[in-house]
Amino acid sequence: MKAWYLQPRESEIALELREAPPPEPGAGQVRIRVRAASLNRGEFIAGHGLARPGAKPAGSEGAGEIERIGPEVSGWKPGDRVMGRCPGAFAEYGLIDAREAMAVPPNLSWEEAASVPLAFLVVYDMLVAQGALKAGEWVLVTGVSSGVGVAALQAAKALGAKVIGTSGSKEKLERLKRLGLDVAIETRKGDFHDSVMHATNGKGASLAVNTVGGSMFAECVRSLGFEGRLAIVGYVDGVLSGEIDLDAVHSRRLRIFGVSNKLRNAGQRAATVRGFAADLLPFFASGQIRPLIDHTHEFADLPAAKARMEANAHAGKIVLRI
Amino acid sequence: MKAWYLQPRESEIALELREAPPPEPGAGQVRIRVRAASLNRGEFIAGHGLARPGAKPAGSEGAGEIERIGPEVSGWKPGDRVMGRCPGAFAEYGLIDAREAMAVPPNLSWEEAASVPLAFLVVYDMLVAQGALKAGEWVLVTGVSSGVGVAALQAAKALGAKVIGTSGSKEKLERLKRLGLDVAIETRKGDFHDSVMHATNGKGASLAVNTVGGSMFAECVRSLGFEGRLAIVGYVDGVLSGEIDLDAVHSRRLRIFGVSNKLRNAGQRAATVRGFAADLLPFFASGQIRPLIDHTHEFADLPAAKARMEANAHAGKIVLRI
Repeated sequence: MKAWYLQPRESEIALELREAPPPEPGAGQVRIRVRAASLNRGEFIAGHGLARPGAKPAGSEGAGEIERIGPEVSGWKPGDRVMGRCPGAFAEYGLIDAREAMAVPPNLSWEEAASVPLAFLVVYDMLVAQGALKAGEWVLVTGVSSGVGVAALQAAKALGAKVIGTSGSKEKLERLKRLGLDVAIETRKGDFHDSVMHATNGKGASLAVNTVGGSMFAECVRSLGFEGRLAIVGYVDGVLSGEIDLDAVHSRRLRIFGVSNKLRNAGQRAATVRGFAADLLPFFASGQIRPLIDHTHEFADLPAAKARMEANAHAGKIVLRI
Repeated sequence: MKAWYLQPRESEIALELREAPPPEPGAGQVRIRVRAASLNRGEFIAGHGLARPGAKPAGSEGAGEIERIGPEVSGWKPGDRVMGRCPGAFAEYGLIDAREAMAVPPNLSWEEAASVPLAFLVVYDMLVAQGALKAGEWVLVTGVSSGVGVAALQAAKALGAKVIGTSGSKEKLERLKRLGLDVAIETRKGDFHDSVMHATNGKGASLAVNTVGGSMFAECVRSLGFEGRLAIVGYVDGVLSGEIDLDAVHSRRLRIFGVSNKLRNAGQRAATVRGFAADLLPFFASGQIRPLIDHTHEFADLPAAKARMEANAHAGKIVLRI
C-alpha cells in the first residue's frame, strides 16, 4: 500500500510517501480500507503527542470499510462503514481498535465521517462526560474556528446550550454564526470578560472550552459564573502555564479539568466512544450536526493540506481523500 | 440571653459579651438552646466571610436541643438533639435552618457534636460529592492538623482510603498517626512531591485536599497522579493565587475544584447535608469516627479560645461549652 510517513529533517518534520505492507490486525482490531482521513493541528509538531516520526505511517483518525477482522473481535463484519481513532490513517489501509470503531451514519460522506472522531470525542468528554452541560447554559469557546472549537459549537447547540465564541477573524466568526454561534467576540487576546458578562446578563459562562491555551486561561476563569467549569484541551499558543485565582475557584465553586487521551488506556477511550455513540451520534444521523469541512485534498496532496493547516486560514476540518 | 459579639476596634476585632433577646425562628428555622459551639479559623478575620462584626452574635456552628419551631418546619420537635450550621452560635440560643439540622448520634457529647458540622460537611463535599474518593486510593492532606485537615483524615480513613498528611509540627503528626494517618510529612513548605511519589509507588495521589493555600498549590498539582483531583478549600497562608501547569492538568486529566459555601443557597447546602447524613454520619454513630477535640473552653472564656486558635498550637477543634 501507499502510506505517508513523517521524516525528521534538520529544522522541520518532512512528509514522505512510501510503499509499505498493509498492517495486520492484532487481537481486538479491525483493518479498514481508509477512504478519508482528517488532519489535526498537533499532528506535525514533535512533542505534541501526535507526531511520531519514523517507523509507522502518519495520521490519527479516519473512515473506511472494514476489510479484515482480527482475533477476539465481535460486532463488526467486513464491509461495515466505520470511523474512529486510527493511528496511521494517512495510508490506504489502517487499523482501528474494534471498541473504538463507530458506525458511520448513512447520511455522512467518507470525508465528513473522517472529520468526526477526534474532535467530537474530546468534545463529548468536555461538554457531557466531564462538563455536565445542561440545556440553556452558556458555553464559552475560545478559538471557536478550530476543529475542536467548531465541534464544540455544534455539539453545544445540539444539546440546547447557547454559545459565545472568540476568534481573531471576523470572517470566520461570520461563517460560524450560520452554524448557530450566538455571540461572536473578535479578539486574539484574553480580553473577553466584559463581553461574556454582557451576553450572560452578568452571570458568567457555565462552561468554558479553552482551545487556545495559557494566554487565555486567567480570562476564562474570570468569565465563569457560579459552579462554572473550564476544560483544558490544549495550548496552540504555546503557553503551558497560567496564573490561577484560587479565591475565584474556591468561592465560585469552579471546576477546572483536563481532557487529554494521552495516558488513557483502550478501555477508558472505549467508554468515551460508547457515551458519544449514545448521546451525540444521533445528532449526526438526524442531520442536526453536519461536520464542517474546510477543504478536501487528494491523497497525494498531503503537503498542501499540511500547508493549509499551518497557514491557519481554515475554519473546520481539513480532510484527505484516500 | 447572653451572646458574644464581634466589635471592630482600631487594629483588631474585639469580643464583647452582651445581653440580647433570643432570636425568633423564621419560616423553615428551629431555635436551639445551644449547648456547645466550635470555633473556625476564619471566624475572627474580617473579609474571610465568617466574621460579621456588629449586629448579630458571632459563631457559625453548634449543637443543642430544639426549643422552639418556626413555621413550615416538619420532621423536628422540641427536645430533639441537633447539630448544624448555626450563625450566631456563640450565644445561649441560636437558629438552624431545619433542612441543615442533623440529628446528633446518641454516643456523641455536645462538645463532639458541635465539632462536626462545618468541617465534616466540607469534607463530604471534597471527598465524596466532588472528589469521588474510592476505597484504596491515596489522599494527600496539606495542613492535616487543622480542623478540616483532621476531619478529612478521619473521613478518608473511614471510606477506606490511605492518607498522607503534611504539618509543620512533628508532635501533631504523631498524634494524628494514632487517628490512622498512614504517611506523615513534616514540612511547612511545598516540598512534599518526592515523599508523596515514594509513598504511592510513583503513582501520585488520587485526591489532594489543600487546606493551606497558594503556597502549596503547585506542589499539590505536581503530586497528583492520573485523573487526580484537587480540592481548593482555603488559604490560611494568605496566598490567593498560584501558577498552574496546564500541561499537567491536560495530560493527566486532573480536576481542580472549589468547595466554598459562600454563594450557595439553602437548598444547595441542604443537599450536602443529606449526602453527609447518608454517607458519613453512620461512621459517627458506630464510633468509627470520633471528632477530635483539642480543648473545650467555658462560655465566658471565648477570648482564651480565640487566643488558642491564633497560637496555632492545637490539633483538632476548639470548642465552647455553653
